[in-house]
Amino acid sequence: MRVFICGIDGYLGWTLAMYLSVRGHEVAGADSFLRRKWVEEVGGHSAIPIVSMNERLEAYKEVYGKEITFWEGDLCNYDFVLRCLKEFQPEAIVHLGEQPCAPYSQIDVEHCVFTQHNNIVGTLNLLWAMTEVCPQAHLVKLGTMGEYGTPNIDIPEGFFTIEYRGRKDTLPFPKQAGSWYHQTKVHDTHNIMFACKIWNLRSTDLMQGVVYGTKIEEMNADERLCTRFDFDEAFGTVINRYCAQAVIGHTLTPYGKGGQTRGFIHIADSMRCMELTAVNPPEIGEYRVFNQWAERFDVTTLAQEVKKAGEAAGIKVEVKPIDNPRVEAEKHYYNPDHQKLFDLGFRPHKMVDMLPEMISDLMKHKDRIEAKREHILPTIKWRRDGAKR
Amino acid sequence: MRVFICGIDGYLGWTLAMYLSVRGHEVAGADSFLRRKWVEEVGGHSAIPIVSMNERLEAYKEVYGKEITFWEGDLCNYDFVLRCLKEFQPEAIVHLGEQPCAPYSQIDVEHCVFTQHNNIVGTLNLLWAMTEVCPQAHLVKLGTMGEYGTPNIDIPEGFFTIEYRGRKDTLPFPKQAGSWYHQTKVHDTHNIMFACKIWNLRSTDLMQGVVYGTKIEEMNADERLCTRFDFDEAFGTVINRYCAQAVIGHTLTPYGKGGQTRGFIHIADSMRCMELTAVNPPEIGEYRVFNQWAERFDVTTLAQEVKKAGEAAGIKVEVKPIDNPRVEAEKHYYNPDHQKLFDLGFRPHKMVDMLPEMISDLMKHKDRIEAKREHILPTIKWRRDGAKR
Repeated sequence: MRVFICGIDGYLGWTLAMYLSVRGHEVAGADSFLRRKWVEEVGGHSAIPIVSMNERLEAYKEVYGKEITFWEGDLCNYDFVLRCLKEFQPEAIVHLGEQPCAPYSQIDVEHCVFTQHNNIVGTLNLLWAMTEVCPQAHLVKLGTMGEYGTPNIDIPEGFFTIEYRGRKDTLPFPKQAGSWYHQTKVHDTHNIMFACKIWNLRSTDLMQGVVYGTKIEEMNADERLCTRFDFDEAFGTVINRYCAQAVIGHTLTPYGKGGQTRGFIHIADSMRCMELTAVNPPEIGEYRVFNQWAERFDVTTLAQEVKKAGEAAGIKVEVKPIDNPRVEAEKHYYNPDHQKLFDLGFRPHKMVDMLPEMISDLMKHKDRIEAKREHILPTIKWRRDGAKR
Repeated sequence: MRVFICGIDGYLGWTLAMYLSVRGHEVAGADSFLRRKWVEEVGGHSAIPIVSMNERLEAYKEVYGKEITFWEGDLCNYDFVLRCLKEFQPEAIVHLGEQPCAPYSQIDVEHCVFTQHNNIVGTLNLLWAMTEVCPQAHLVKLGTMGEYGTPNIDIPEGFFTIEYRGRKDTLPFPKQAGSWYHQTKVHDTHNIMFACKIWNLRSTDLMQGVVYGTKIEEMNADERLCTRFDFDEAFGTVINRYCAQAVIGHTLTPYGKGGQTRGFIHIADSMRCMELTAVNPPEIGEYRVFNQWAERFDVTTLAQEVKKAGEAAGIKVEVKPIDNPRVEAEKHYYNPDHQKLFDLGFRPHKMVDMLPEMISDLMKHKDRIEAKREHILPTIKWRRDGAKR
């Protein structure tokens, strides 16, 4: 099928482009290279070296003999979005084109406002352009499990049927997101649900868990095909950051009490889920939600697993909690559903099986991680001095 | 107390400034006069003539002997917000400074994006500036009953305790707003709740019903003190628009099946509620919700009541439904709570008692309504041609 990927230069975007193209889908995408700038801004860089988009596309063509179409531009520019969709006429649009980092959105008012503006306006432009150009296309939107927060009840997939004062209804599950970034995903969710209602668009909102992993198999063919791997305090997500810490002998640093529990998914599994979603579209007018995660861990258990994997690779690894820069529950109930993708055939990898490959891939770029050692520990804080009790 | 009003030039903003100042509060406010421009843009004007802000402030001083401080500027400009708060050091901030019109937000992609950007960024700037300047101040935020939509269960005030799969939690009530504008209020709600959590700010989110009415008593003293009264398809809300239709012999036009039921509140009662809220602040760090409405009606009943009031004033009034330009349930369950403001002492007027005054006030400006007759019926549609099934 014809799949348009917003944010095709990112960690997931570039990977998805290859993953889908290799499997016979026609792929096009857009990016404005902001992710590269943001990571540079916070002092990080990709542990695994990445080449320019032009070089990526060339290398991919050399190795796999296929073309991926690319347009450089910003989703906040409506005319650009319109032009891409008109030219490509996608059957599915996978929307990965947002500022995806919680700490980055917490830096200050400018970063908060930028993140909310960028993510909300990009999604609105997509919705309006779809309505104008391809109202039957399927919007596969990357949301996050973080939209739900950590309620004291089970988390269903988007909607739940409840009884309240003797009456029943099926309603969107309440959202309690934990950063200005995560809030943008909640805002998107509401906007997309509304667009499906008034315009009969169709969309699957993928509430994705935290992604980890260095690559998909198809990247082994040529190092120019690698996707980025961030490990700095802002763009490095927890398992990836732990692995990077491990390979340079940096203590693994769970935040606070370390009982924060989340759903996790390997990057190859994330790809599989997005493909499964795209090829199994909802009905016209339907807005549906899949919780896209494989395994559930607390951040202390994760640290112990990375420590084990590191030690199996001959690295001495220590774990020592540090003050939590975030405002979040550090011990809580957490039981989200994730049945729908399994029903479509999703069979995930196990994290413990993927850690050795990650450690080994990162060992090759130990120097690049070492060079940014001072950007791993958190300096961006959720709290503000002015607002103490 | 020191109350800062965002959107002090609006229908509610100017009214609140007078209402609070007359009652001994120290009032300052900001506005960028966008409401005047938006109404002009859609072809409307205020049925009741309004003077410039300078003339308003002068007239108010002449009549009541008090000063209201005014700064012209945009909440989307962070430095402006910061400067206002630093100079005034408010104890309460009443935030009415948003684009408040559902049809306006539905016009096209530009109006949708403008509305979401304007409302979300203004509120974010306020939250960040409060954290920096006056973290103990109380943010009284105008939300809307429209955030809840029309669920098939009772609507509590913001939060509800539910049991789901054998476990209990108290959660934010799910939001199902019905326009791009209403969605911005949902986004604000999530953003404000989060700011209270991470920064210990305090806020009351007023989920206000549809406001109607031509004035508060204090405006009788001088016609330069009048607040605006809109009746065009976009900025005219239902009771106000019906009254304007009645006085020029225009058929009253409920949309669709006419069973749409909402909560309503007179402008004087809205003022009373905002004062009650401001002088009874929540605890530091608390985010609370009041549902601010007095009486519940469906739009057909409203038309019948306005017809009766018109006929009592000697005007022949007809009622005839027209196609619904919106996408909304036209017959539905609707039972929202509104106890908390009553617990603080709120005792509302009855709509039937207020209609004669409205009709009589508008009769004086019949020519101004007649002049904009062709801007009363809806031309802005929720649906798009491209997205039919």
